[in-house]
Amino acid sequence: MERTCGNGTLRITDAGREVTLIGWVARRRNFGALVFIDLRDRSGIVQVVFDEKTAELVKDVRSEYILQVTGTVEQRKDPNPNLATGEIEVQASAVKVINSAQTPPITIADDTDTLEDTRLKYRYLDLRRPILQQYMILRHKVCMIARNTLDKKGFVEVETPILARSTPEGARDYLVPSRIYNGKFWALPQSPQIYKQLLMIGGMEKYFQIARCFRDEDLRADRQPEFTQIDIEMSFVDENDVFGVVEDLMKDIFRGTKDVELEEHFIRIPYRECMAKYGSDKPDLRFGNPIHDVSHIFAHTGFQVFAKTLEDKGMVGALKFENAAEKYSRKGLDQLQDFIRHGFKAKALAYLKMENGELSGSIFKVLSEEEKQALIEELEIRDHDLVLIVADQPSVAQSSLGALRVRLARELGIIPEGVYKFLWVTDFPMFEYSEEEGRWVAQHHPFTAPKAEDVDKLFTDPGHVSSRAYDLVLNGYELLSGSIRIHDQDLQAKVFEAIGLTMDQARARFGFFLDAFKYGTPPHGGVGIGLERLIMVLAGTENIRDVVAFPTTNSSLDLMSDAPNVVEQKQLDVLGIELSEKTKKAMQ
Amino acid sequence: MERTCGNGTLRITDAGREVTLIGWVARRRNFGALVFIDLRDRSGIVQVVFDEKTAELVKDVRSEYILQVTGTVEQRKDPNPNLATGEIEVQASAVKVINSAQTPPITIADDTDTLEDTRLKYRYLDLRRPILQQYMILRHKVCMIARNTLDKKGFVEVETPILARSTPEGARDYLVPSRIYNGKFWALPQSPQIYKQLLMIGGMEKYFQIARCFRDEDLRADRQPEFTQIDIEMSFVDENDVFGVVEDLMKDIFRGTKDVELEEHFIRIPYRECMAKYGSDKPDLRFGNPIHDVSHIFAHTGFQVFAKTLEDKGMVGALKFENAAEKYSRKGLDQLQDFIRHGFKAKALAYLKMENGELSGSIFKVLSEEEKQALIEELEIRDHDLVLIVADQPSVAQSSLGALRVRLARELGIIPEGVYKFLWVTDFPMFEYSEEEGRWVAQHHPFTAPKAEDVDKLFTDPGHVSSRAYDLVLNGYELLSGSIRIHDQDLQAKVFEAIGLTMDQARARFGFFLDAFKYGTPPHGGVGIGLERLIMVLAGTENIRDVVAFPTTNSSLDLMSDAPNVVEQKQLDVLGIELSEKTKKAMQ
Repeated sequence: MERTCGNGTLRITDAGREVTLIGWVARRRNFGALVFIDLRDRSGIVQVVFDEKTAELVKDVRSEYILQVTGTVEQRKDPNPNLATGEIEVQASAVKVINSAQTPPITIADDTDTLEDTRLKYRYLDLRRPILQQYMILRHKVCMIARNTLDKKGFVEVETPILARSTPEGARDYLVPSRIYNGKFWALPQSPQIYKQLLMIGGMEKYFQIARCFRDEDLRADRQPEFTQIDIEMSFVDENDVFGVVEDLMKDIFRGTKDVELEEHFIRIPYRECMAKYGSDKPDLRFGNPIHDVSHIFAHTGFQVFAKTLEDKGMVGALKFENAAEKYSRKGLDQLQDFIRHGFKAKALAYLKMENGELSGSIFKVLSEEEKQALIEELEIRDHDLVLIVADQPSVAQSSLGALRVRLARELGIIPEGVYKFLWVTDFPMFEYSEEEGRWVAQHHPFTAPKAEDVDKLFTDPGHVSSRAYDLVLNGYELLSGSIRIHDQDLQAKVFEAIGLTMDQARARFGFFLDAFKYGTPPHGGVGIGLERLIMVLAGTENIRDVVAFPTTNSSLDLMSDAPNVVEQKQLDVLGIELSEKTKKAMQ
Repeated sequence: MERTCGNGTLRITDAGREVTLIGWVARRRNFGALVFIDLRDRSGIVQVVFDEKTAELVKDVRSEYILQVTGTVEQRKDPNPNLATGEIEVQASAVKVINSAQTPPITIADDTDTLEDTRLKYRYLDLRRPILQQYMILRHKVCMIARNTLDKKGFVEVETPILARSTPEGARDYLVPSRIYNGKFWALPQSPQIYKQLLMIGGMEKYFQIARCFRDEDLRADRQPEFTQIDIEMSFVDENDVFGVVEDLMKDIFRGTKDVELEEHFIRIPYRECMAKYGSDKPDLRFGNPIHDVSHIFAHTGFQVFAKTLEDKGMVGALKFENAAEKYSRKGLDQLQDFIRHGFKAKALAYLKMENGELSGSIFKVLSEEEKQALIEELEIRDHDLVLIVADQPSVAQSSLGALRVRLARELGIIPEGVYKFLWVTDFPMFEYSEEEGRWVAQHHPFTAPKAEDVDKLFTDPGHVSSRAYDLVLNGYELLSGSIRIHDQDLQAKVFEAIGLTMDQARARFGFFLDAFKYGTPPHGGVGIGLERLIMVLAGTENIRDVVAFPTTNSSLDLMSDAPNVVEQKQLDVLGIELSEKTKKAMQ
């Protein structure tokens, strides 16, 4: 179909040009004998003017009709600064209605206030909103950059199966009944982890895949049943190699989509240090306000609450916010205390304020002069500063203060826009103790390598074994997880033993995958980057559905196609399955 | 890990260079005090020599051990012309064993004669074979080129859901039981067809996706349960636009992977002409030998078999093969007759040979001199030529002759290598009559547009309505299917009526998708390119498993991970399903 250019590409320099445009009617207004139509295509919107002679041609035209318009680009007398094409308009000389449209059930505009559920039901119309089209294009752009960067570095994209084997801990696997082998099931992979390690064993050396992953999780606002991962694995590498590839990748993506130059190397913080300093393994470093461990100040305190806490191997931690003293009333501070009590099981929140050179606050009276002076010096407390103090078990104190740190930064508006602060969190604990199972379990997965210097603690002190697992954090979001994997069979056996598995039990669980390690496995490691999360940060949206073309609701429903749905009995028959009695009853 | 370059990249120009290499031991030979090791990595193989001083270092090293070797590149006295690195070898000065290996259960070499099932079980080792690595890299390259070409043309890659809605004709859908909504199911999409049309309605204008598709088909040698499609859809286009994009794409792919320049435009043949001329809708045009309809020669024949066939609206068709007369004995010709009798239900095969200026053959005696002379002139029969004749109903005669055309070309070795003949087959029939359902059904799908000039035949002569569906054929393989879709609701209603559906019935079947068409649908069309098929042609393999990293067997089994497999009862419980009694019994 004849078409000169995209509607949104016309500029004042095109004035005088005769053009033929195609697009949807975004808006129609009549001014006396004149008709103004905003014509929208993927490139944007342009105003088309129909005068006395041509208005007749569009008398029946309404919103979302598709038109082909020929006309002349002319300078506008009243420019619209909100529109990229706002300096011009097109004086129509001819028009053809390509298709008509019923009145759409939702408003197609970026400032729509239509309920999200209604927009999801009519997603094909919602997708006409320019902002959503831009998000889709951004997502495409990021994937193009990622692929080209990795290709240039010698990585090969390999598609791994979506019909895969269910793992023994497959509680979160989506299952697919087999028609040919009734009674057996495929599982949709939670990630290509096993396949990518097999590709390393298979000599692929540098693999990547922008891979669909599936996790049948309970409802969470920022999750979708299926999601996409930029999945990378490399052989003959250590952390520096992996970090280098990811850093280059991020630099290319941010340069290509945001025109932002990232720093040459991202900082690295070991997990324990990160928790101590920011109370989180994904701290937002766009602002400072670290946690101060001020326990030493209270080593001999007379304040019984602190003394008791320290005696019980707890800690006293403090946060300082400048110019915040006047912004938190007693009531506001009570809300903060409720927040950490309910969210983190903290016992209490203490605070100090410096106002007019005078310290005051909840624990002002119970601290000694020396303690107060030591706090003032260590935290460099100045006029108008607010200090929040939590005395509790370290994990409680750290996570409470970490959450307060973020909350106050938001409330105080000290988080700068347009700043991207990456950090690697390294040396994650190898194991965590599972109260439920009464044993140590792998925190990442049991193929993650322990740090060499901690191998001798595998049995004597598993809680203090650090692993070679790492996360990349951006502005408080975990962008990726990864690790260097075990490639030595003896070490693998030791790790299994440490989590209470014999090699036989391990084989029963991991079967063919363990066998594969016997035939010359290269040292290898990699990452899985959450694509949706990355796009969300780039797009500046907190709604994951904004960056997915056809998302489900938070409760895993596709409102557009009404899926999942019931199927015909004969479909179940060929699969050799039936609904359980309970299900049948519930469906009646 | 320190590594100078890829093993397979070393050349005579590197002689004298000190290098550090990493790789797997492909082969080890002892020659007196010397040890020769072929060291393999993804880039290829190089020979490493350990002399009296260094041989001790590798005395325990066996096949598939991983080594890091430092040494000097030296010119070989006895070059190996079969190896890219065959002019040089590396004189080792130091070696480190990075990992050991048990004796692998399969031979890792391209000329392996290990059973395919064993290789599939140890796919991670099979993937170390250089040829398979090259196929994986080829596949990656094709996808990179496809994405970059389409991106440059303004196409946006959009990921569409894999957890989708089961369609009413979903007999070939893989189903996924929902845990949250027990009794309801997702289905894995057979293609993104509905989603890509919705994206056109959503204003995306130019979409593509290298998309995973799923089809639970009965066993076929060249299919896998999951496969990949380069899926393209465009708005405001006709066939010329779609063909132009695909032709440019193919040109870029063949230039980038085979260094072959394809012709500027691919030829186009309407379906009926294609069937008449080649007896196939996917003819191999690397050779000629078209079908000649010689019915007119026998309009008044005295040969009762031909006369009766023509009276019954049949046809007489002929194929000519040069220099083939002596290559087909009576027995060979009988085999050809059996072939079309069993394969195509043809009644008989007649033949004529021209030898020493004399015509002979099965029907020599029953034809008149005029008929023979007319055949000689029309088919330009020369000495040593073989003519095969089938008299039957047109569909039987055409398909029999089409199959013979291919079979003889192969047997006679007249198909040139390294030649790529593309053609568009257009104007496919809109409908085919389903004896089973007693009605006309859509041959492609009911959203395919009929040709404008045939719309008035929708009800009067549905069998002769041509559609705007097309295939792209390469060397006898169907590479893609596609069509221009209906975008006009009235026309859509008529097409449904023609296949015996009321709009209400259509709505019950296609529901939300039909609704979507009401709100301003652009004219649109597209294609789905079979990626595996394309790679197979480029790689020159007829085994689809060669171009899939982790394939299943022909009977849909993953021998490596032993999937599909049984799952735990509690996994089924949370899904609200159980195995049917019949399944349980069969599994005992």
